Amino acid sequence: MESEFSVGEILPNERDLAARFGVARATLRQALEQLELEGRLQRRRGVGTTVAPPRVGVAVGTEQHAWPGSADDVWQPADCTLAVPPATVAQALESGRDDAVHTVRRSRVTHGQPVAAELLYVPRESVPGLTAIDAPSGPARARAVLRELQHLELEGQESAVELGSARAGEAKELDRLPGAPVLVVTTRYIAEGRAAALSVATYRADTCRLTFGDTGGVVVHQDPERRAS
Amino acid sequence: MESEFSVGEILPNERDLAARFGVARATLRQALEQLELEGRLQRRRGVGTTVAPPRVGVAVGTEQHAWPGSADDVWQPADCTLAVPPATVAQALESGRDDAVHTVRRSRVTHGQPVAAELLYVPRESVPGLTAIDAPSGPARARAVLRELQHLELEGQESAVELGSARAGEAKELDRLPGAPVLVVTTRYIAEGRAAALSVATYRADTCRLTFGDTGGVVVHQDPERRAS
Repeated sequence: MESEFSVGEILPNERDLAARFGVARATLRQALEQLELEGRLQRRRGVGTTVAPPRVGVAVGTEQHAWPGSADDVWQPADCTLAVPPATVAQALESGRDDAVHTVRRSRVTHGQPVAAELLYVPRESVPGLTAIDAPSGPARARAVLRELQHLELEGQESAVELGSARAGEAKELDRLPGAPVLVVTTRYIAEGRAAALSVATYRADTCRLTFGDTGGVVVHQDPERRAS
Repeated sequence: MESEFSVGEILPNERDLAARFGVARATLRQALEQLELEGRLQRRRGVGTTVAPPRVGVAVGTEQHAWPGSADDVWQPADCTLAVPPATVAQALESGRDDAVHTVRRSRVTHGQPVAAELLYVPRESVPGLTAIDAPSGPARARAVLRELQHLELEGQESAVELGSARAGEAKELDRLPGAPVLVVTTRYIAEGRAAALSVATYRADTCRLTFGDTGGVVVHQDPERRAS
């Protein structure tokens, strides 16, 4: 199918495609879903199914021991609120169930395209100097929280990656359909022997491959075994 | 749906479920696909759709600067062949297009369940002492290749994670249906200033969350934002 269509081209509808390849529609649909998981096709809101460009490598965790919001951070702060987080976030932060935490919403854009949305949870004890700042919400408040966070000494961080599906709000932010596959990266930042912040970031699985490593600058080529077969 | 069914329970068929929740079958199917991506449901060969247990955290890349096959390696070698790799693998290894490389096939089992399948590509110049060993293939040969690899000094490694779908062979090895979502982890090992080995590992996305980090032993709780909502 890749040889018949070019990148960005909109595919004919399922019925026409099934006829073209001489397969049943159920078989065709399964093949399309598989190609979407592999990042070769994209289903886009109001556009249809198109042939996907190669995935973009997105560095995750290469900048070890750097707080969110530090000088070379690639995320754009969008908002900040003070609210009681979901119970599992409170648990991961080892904070009380009813303790409000600062919730910073940020987004990440690569090559002009939204690739990820993040919620960063920061307990109040991680940013004790914050009360002096006036902005109650919005990007200014988000920047203030991130700035205050830098005052702690970061002792370690750890991440987990798993598959998820885009919620309605995220989907809109990521320019995807709800339910689209995303890679969920959870990162816990440790300072003063405790969890000082927790990030839950959602990356578009169709356009992103997440890169980790200690030899920054070397590019691992895309999905070698799979592309070749 | 989680509150109505328990872990391991087999769900009724789509028609009955749609009737039970009073939704159209297309809506139901979309919801089931979304829950499968989120790891809450599993579709299993010959079983049907069941409620999934929580995902298992699988450490990836915590053991920095360790060659595959080193003492505490979690992978089981299954086979080894000498063959020309796919073109993109040759490219990533910066080897000649027609150079045969050792291809070690390994599998990873956690809690008695297969969680990953790996192909490890090792150029012949990375294991110059290998000719002395007799076994032409099989696990003994795989162990010999891994053992020889330890003689090089590992200078760095880097990984990439992306979404893929299980090929027929992999699917069988992972006890999944073909096309099931997998997390593909590509790792390049650097020694003597060049790519000394390339690993392409395929993890079951339904049961695994991949963990990265420098504070081993601390557990990030599962998908906090999503579980809570």
